[in-house]
Amino acid sequence: MNNFKLHAPTDFVFGKEAELQVADMLKKHGATKVLIHYGSGSVIKSGLMQRVEDVLNAANISYVKLGGAQPNPVDTLVYEGIDLCRKENVDFILAVGGGSTIDSAKSIAVGVPYDGDFWDLFDGKTIEKAIPVATILTIPAAGSEASDSMVLNGTKGGKVLKRGAGSSHVIPVFSLLNPELNYTLPAFQTACGVADMMAHVMERYFTTVKDVEISDRLCEAILLAIITEAPKAIKDPNNYSARANLTWAGTVAHNGSCGVGRIGDWSSHNLEHELSALYDVAHGAGLAVMFPAWMKFVCETDLDRFVQFAGRVWGVDTFGDKKAVALKGIEEMEKFFTSIGLPINFEQLGAKKEDIDKMVETLNINVGDTFGSFKKLTMDDARKIYELAV
Amino acid sequence: MNNFKLHAPTDFVFGKEAELQVADMLKKHGATKVLIHYGSGSVIKSGLMQRVEDVLNAANISYVKLGGAQPNPVDTLVYEGIDLCRKENVDFILAVGGGSTIDSAKSIAVGVPYDGDFWDLFDGKTIEKAIPVATILTIPAAGSEASDSMVLNGTKGGKVLKRGAGSSHVIPVFSLLNPELNYTLPAFQTACGVADMMAHVMERYFTTVKDVEISDRLCEAILLAIITEAPKAIKDPNNYSARANLTWAGTVAHNGSCGVGRIGDWSSHNLEHELSALYDVAHGAGLAVMFPAWMKFVCETDLDRFVQFAGRVWGVDTFGDKKAVALKGIEEMEKFFTSIGLPINFEQLGAKKEDIDKMVETLNINVGDTFGSFKKLTMDDARKIYELAV
Repeated sequence: MNNFKLHAPTDFVFGKEAELQVADMLKKHGATKVLIHYGSGSVIKSGLMQRVEDVLNAANISYVKLGGAQPNPVDTLVYEGIDLCRKENVDFILAVGGGSTIDSAKSIAVGVPYDGDFWDLFDGKTIEKAIPVATILTIPAAGSEASDSMVLNGTKGGKVLKRGAGSSHVIPVFSLLNPELNYTLPAFQTACGVADMMAHVMERYFTTVKDVEISDRLCEAILLAIITEAPKAIKDPNNYSARANLTWAGTVAHNGSCGVGRIGDWSSHNLEHELSALYDVAHGAGLAVMFPAWMKFVCETDLDRFVQFAGRVWGVDTFGDKKAVALKGIEEMEKFFTSIGLPINFEQLGAKKEDIDKMVETLNINVGDTFGSFKKLTMDDARKIYELAV
Repeated sequence: MNNFKLHAPTDFVFGKEAELQVADMLKKHGATKVLIHYGSGSVIKSGLMQRVEDVLNAANISYVKLGGAQPNPVDTLVYEGIDLCRKENVDFILAVGGGSTIDSAKSIAVGVPYDGDFWDLFDGKTIEKAIPVATILTIPAAGSEASDSMVLNGTKGGKVLKRGAGSSHVIPVFSLLNPELNYTLPAFQTACGVADMMAHVMERYFTTVKDVEISDRLCEAILLAIITEAPKAIKDPNNYSARANLTWAGTVAHNGSCGVGRIGDWSSHNLEHELSALYDVAHGAGLAVMFPAWMKFVCETDLDRFVQFAGRVWGVDTFGDKKAVALKGIEEMEKFFTSIGLPINFEQLGAKKEDIDKMVETLNINVGDTFGSFKKLTMDDARKIYELAV
């Protein structure tokens, strides 16, 4: 096990009506002027925004609002949010929505106190401060409600970019998680969220670090819970306990707790980002396509780990040829993705083999010549993985 | 799943030489005058105290020291610590040791700002503030390095008491966990720590709350890791990875993360406290005796849960009669305790059947007429459980 630091200070309120505690939590955490950031009209249509505003008004908490955050959040809105926060002396950002809204909020939060183009902070410049961010989560998937990271789309020099950045300064100060808010999520979006949270766990699970039994087991625990609960939520969208178990699984998948003492490998996220930047497909759907392909390409790097994954997570009989067991585990995962309505290849996703050149080109801009840690990958490898996904 | 709040803000540094970051962490968290609280001479003999003092001196951090914390910490030292902190204007307590030292430090921390006898705070009075506490952990067991609770012994009105109290104000601000500091722990003490951390998980696991798959799985994950790693650490005390896995298992067993959305049942801890108060036996050894007895008494309350426990944690074949499967799981747990050198009955522990009256009498003082939530227990039930443990 590697040395590690872990500081997961997010203050959670979880359960029915959790959002009604927003004023108490804002006061507890010192907010005086709040930007409420949200996405499309769904949080308005559902009545959530009205409930939040009613609570803030009753508590005399001053706020401004900025909507328009999109799936795969974009930089234009971030510039707008930064200007608004500066003009209104906002000292706290409350994101109401899913991962994209939260990531957009985090990007605004780091941009406000930064004296330059905020894209610098996605280009490797250290994030030294940020306005505090809190969340009311409506979609369990990205884990951004407790993570130290964010992803953003934009254009720079004519290229479409999808970049990630991270800092302890963007870990939400508090998050209010009411699983009932997920009842209106369509089955496909629920499934995409499931793939995203599973990816967050698996990207930590496949590590070259040895002797990590406690975090192996924690990773497996989260995956096992997701595999049990996801089909229930998809079959019955109003199944509270399935929604609740999935919501918390999504949070612990990405708050750092299951990745302690190990080095993760985020290649599948990197590979997928080119798909969602190019086709604007749901991130989770792209992950369901890219993760099995990545696994097939890298599994011989550590067959024992893939055998453990197959056995403990997918219940595969682990006797016999290791490669066969490993592939059987991957196949079971593909079957699971298919069973909850996710694509597992380019054709099902709507991606095109002819675009692989473009994907590799942009990937190269985004990650450099090599990427990955479980197995270090070149652009040639990336091309082969994309081909395996066709 | 029940609604819940979770705030686990402890800032962790984990790994080799973690203790050398003590000055940086004290500064990060605003300490100006520190009380270093420790137990017996072992932290001095091992050189740990000298390393800590060297780091503090180099960083010009002012401190005073108070040793003498004992296994099953006692109130006399707490009074002394409170006086010392007030006299020296201490604003931060650093506990260097195991759970007893940390609990003693926490008791001092709540006593300093309290205007009355600190025992009130163990008698149900709300803890409203505390001096911040941090830890350098030398014994993985109690989980006090990240928990919101503490346990203390003392005498009041001629009765020997062992009482617990809890508050978010006593969650350590930071904890430095270097598994190498456990190399010198004797096998029996290591095993007692294992029983303690397993008890913390199992006391959360056995709940009447339904549909808690994510926290069920997290609980099982921690138990599975402990069961794998404990024998390695006992066989080879200098096995870093076994010590590291156990250390982190002990922390997540009791920082609240595996108990979300459920109601725990702390009856076994209550039952055990009477043993360690009466005989001054190691808490973990007492738990290894009382937990199986409690399980045998209560298992029919929810056989399905005990079957799940037997199957998922102990690998018991779950076909067939539920009661038989449940008992087989308990038997496997007893075998495991025995295999790592723990007692599983009064005789092995050195407790006496004749003292059961005394145990029940003091238990009654400590918990009232009934206790427990998985199954509500009377003093008659407690007597029967003690008898099952003989």
